[in-house]
Amino acid sequence: MEKTSGVKLLGSHPSPFVNRVVLALTIKSIHYELVEVNPHKDGEILAKYNPVHKKIPVLVHGDKPISESLIIVRYIDEVWNEGPSILPTDPYDRAMALFWAAYIDDKWFPLFKQLQGSQEGDSRKETLDKITEGLVFLEKAFKDSSKGKPFFGGETVGYLDIAMGSVVGWIKVAETLIGQKIFDDEKAPLLVGWIDKIYSENSVKDAMLNPQTLLEVFKKLQAMKTEAAAT
Amino acid sequence: MEKTSGVKLLGSHPSPFVNRVVLALTIKSIHYELVEVNPHKDGEILAKYNPVHKKIPVLVHGDKPISESLIIVRYIDEVWNEGPSILPTDPYDRAMALFWAAYIDDKWFPLFKQLQGSQEGDSRKETLDKITEGLVFLEKAFKDSSKGKPFFGGETVGYLDIAMGSVVGWIKVAETLIGQKIFDDEKAPLLVGWIDKIYSENSVKDAMLNPQTLLEVFKKLQAMKTEAAAT
Repeated sequence: MEKTSGVKLLGSHPSPFVNRVVLALTIKSIHYELVEVNPHKDGEILAKYNPVHKKIPVLVHGDKPISESLIIVRYIDEVWNEGPSILPTDPYDRAMALFWAAYIDDKWFPLFKQLQGSQEGDSRKETLDKITEGLVFLEKAFKDSSKGKPFFGGETVGYLDIAMGSVVGWIKVAETLIGQKIFDDEKAPLLVGWIDKIYSENSVKDAMLNPQTLLEVFKKLQAMKTEAAAT
Repeated sequence: MEKTSGVKLLGSHPSPFVNRVVLALTIKSIHYELVEVNPHKDGEILAKYNPVHKKIPVLVHGDKPISESLIIVRYIDEVWNEGPSILPTDPYDRAMALFWAAYIDDKWFPLFKQLQGSQEGDSRKETLDKITEGLVFLEKAFKDSSKGKPFFGGETVGYLDIAMGSVVGWIKVAETLIGQKIFDDEKAPLLVGWIDKIYSENSVKDAMLNPQTLLEVFKKLQAMKTEAAAT
């Protein structure tokens, strides 16, 4: 099978999970076709390509569908192994990258969904406290992984940069909506610096999700929800 | 660092997640020390070695702690790469193995916890239906992965054999407790055959969790809970 052609990405631009695949494909300079799939409307397509979860993203390579964003990123790294390496090469560093990426997906990022659902007051404060606790863990993870270099992956954007970088845009939206900083200079100075670096890094900057664009998307979605509820 | 010495496994024998690490170490013929850690009592040890999740298993290799069972299995496969390979070598097969292992952990196996909490009647039936639906997915995954050979990993016990094999013992306990077969000859004939094979396979049979032993453990734990509730 031709490795560099026949790559389709089923997904939607604002999705942080789709963005991970976009970032990985960008780093590896792989030509691909983005097939717009809205998980709420295009159930049939997803039932065919991702029958278990019916979620985006799905990467279709030749005739083979692969789902789950971080599994796709690993697949891309292994198939196009002549490009820059995305996962660390040392087994322990790899284990740590996998560990923290799973932490972001299973524990930390879901807190922002919880935040969106929580009213102001005690429950919001509790969620924000948990987010801060996680942020402090991730700050330490950055320190340990980057070893004084600009990225989690060292000199170049790697697996954990992709996992975390894809969610930053939406966290910036959350900051605007609640009127409070999440990426705090005092609690996570290294991560604050890392955000600046990844958003200005030539190899990925055009593929990073723009917080301003996401805020517009969010407002449009909210307006549609309000309209749907009113009719 | 010496690769084959200084390997400690913090955990408890009946844990299916600890069992995955035991299986991987057994396949690779790695000498290790099991340090009995009870997650309910030994919080301090876990706070030191796994501060994020405070869970077993933790593999301590030299002075480096690694947590999360499937990440540990991958680490073992990569560090002791001279032994039999645990993960498939083809990138697509690897992606599928990672996908189904994550499915077991995130979706399928948690249904058994739900089953334990559910009363007889509609809610139990609903959970059992979901378990069956997942079983059918996993039967197909076995067919696709094994390609007519005895294991998910083909001729030898691999990553998905470990992920699934570690939970079989506890599912057998669930079968006894509810008086109903989960691994059904009609719905999952290949998986039923696979269970026989993995429990009699020389390379791992002594490390597989024994359902009878687990049932005793379960009864003991229930008796302790009842006693604690009564005092």
